[in-house]
Amino acid sequence: MSSVHLVEVGPRDGLQNENKTLRVEEKVELITRAVDAGVRRIEAVSFVNPKRVPQMAGAEEVMAAVPRRADVSYIGLVLNRRGLDRALQSGVDEVNVVVVSTEEFSQRNQGCSVAEGISAAVDIVRDARAAGAFTTVTIATSFGCPFSGEVKASWIGEIIAQLVAGSAPDEIALADTIGVGVPAQVRALAALASEEAPGVPQRWHFHNTRNTGYANALTALDVGATALDASIGGFGGCPFAPAATGNIASEDLIYMLGRSGIETGVDMDVLIKAADWLGVALAKDVPGQLGRAGGFPSR
Amino acid sequence: MSSVHLVEVGPRDGLQNENKTLRVEEKVELITRAVDAGVRRIEAVSFVNPKRVPQMAGAEEVMAAVPRRADVSYIGLVLNRRGLDRALQSGVDEVNVVVVSTEEFSQRNQGCSVAEGISAAVDIVRDARAAGAFTTVTIATSFGCPFSGEVKASWIGEIIAQLVAGSAPDEIALADTIGVGVPAQVRALAALASEEAPGVPQRWHFHNTRNTGYANALTALDVGATALDASIGGFGGCPFAPAATGNIASEDLIYMLGRSGIETGVDMDVLIKAADWLGVALAKDVPGQLGRAGGFPSR
Repeated sequence: MSSVHLVEVGPRDGLQNENKTLRVEEKVELITRAVDAGVRRIEAVSFVNPKRVPQMAGAEEVMAAVPRRADVSYIGLVLNRRGLDRALQSGVDEVNVVVVSTEEFSQRNQGCSVAEGISAAVDIVRDARAAGAFTTVTIATSFGCPFSGEVKASWIGEIIAQLVAGSAPDEIALADTIGVGVPAQVRALAALASEEAPGVPQRWHFHNTRNTGYANALTALDVGATALDASIGGFGGCPFAPAATGNIASEDLIYMLGRSGIETGVDMDVLIKAADWLGVALAKDVPGQLGRAGGFPSR
Repeated sequence: MSSVHLVEVGPRDGLQNENKTLRVEEKVELITRAVDAGVRRIEAVSFVNPKRVPQMAGAEEVMAAVPRRADVSYIGLVLNRRGLDRALQSGVDEVNVVVVSTEEFSQRNQGCSVAEGISAAVDIVRDARAAGAFTTVTIATSFGCPFSGEVKASWIGEIIAQLVAGSAPDEIALADTIGVGVPAQVRALAALASEEAPGVPQRWHFHNTRNTGYANALTALDVGATALDASIGGFGGCPFAPAATGNIASEDLIYMLGRSGIETGVDMDVLIKAADWLGVALAKDVPGQLGRAGGFPSR
């Protein structure tokens, strides 16, 4: 693998668990900074109930204000039919539908059973595609669940099989929602996903909660990932591990990939400045390390 | 690779760049906690000039007080002949001799040229082994130098060849002193080291300064590492990147290895408690993440 798409999820996952809620114009600035860095896929908004996740309010206003370019694809996260309707009306290029693999997490996060979530995702994918949107299904808690612990890779394979049998998405994303995964799991899940959904591109979503996120990302690339989620500054986190850091940081990922000869088209220095800016906006230290450490020393 | 030795370097690398200098009894407590966690190789002391590195003062007193067990091996770091004499007198089991691969760093760190450093290491290895100590040569700045930038893997191979031609150590350690390395470099260096020093065990030393340390560690295992350095809590750091974190954290490494089915014999929970204790002793936040995030969730 000599190139990969960075999917910037900072505007969505990076912000949804922060205490401070950014204003619409701040969200648009974050997105614009990602575009300026060279990122071409951005998970910009989440069409969840703003009463339940106030950090994600104003999704329509954000989408109305982002810089529109033919080469930039905006992703809206949706959990249900109502979210899909909002996403399509707001003009997203892609819809990312979340299915949770474990019952208690699914009930808490989506308000439905796993089976109901799979069924809803099949319908949403069909309708989103009919409306011309690129479709991703993200399988949350693919590496472990805060409530039920171990999640068998074979069960994730079974979910993928059911999704594909219903209405295959354009992309499958495997998410380590709580940051417990290790590279051996990445390899097992990639093999199962390729078996159950041959030819469907695999996107991966890692949190660095236990310092395994970057090793997981590189392993995913090694087994054929076409896209990796990351968030500017590594903000975000998990409501079930309040003190832990969030997504892998975009700038740190770009450092590792760049030094590994893997092309992304993304400018690390622009990301570092964006992370600094976001730290100020959120009034938080930046979890990502590149801003502090600096890039590879020049002679 | 289904098992690996964790080399706890917290008492040495973890402390040598901290503003606060631990008392001898605190250093002994840190070492004892590592032993209690199941660690069997511990870089306990550094025989450098205490005027230059006051954090490392009292090495003889530390060695006189550590718990002596047949199954625990204590390592003393040495830079020169004077250090070797002190190390042997203090009764270390192993001597770790540092050679720096780049001229300016070598002059600043060792006060000698690279060629002089290699020559000194050959002599020290010969004499240390004659005295019954296990010998390691660590090649610092193997992945990059804060002053000269890129370090060619072929040059590290040449240094290894010169060491082996002089007096082959029992172990070669490849160190990413400033935390710039990526897994592709680990693979290149491992291949060269195996070529120049066939059969000599490879130990690796990673800093997580740019969030690549754990990916590097897992890659090193993949290419046959027999030992990995880590420090309790991930303390330590680099005088050339003051705000950056230090070594990979022992507890975070054990989490990743344990979840990967790689045996170390080390108890992660005991390490987490030791990291908490060390954070209090150093009056610093713990860089390692496991203490905050907790282990894999139990059902």
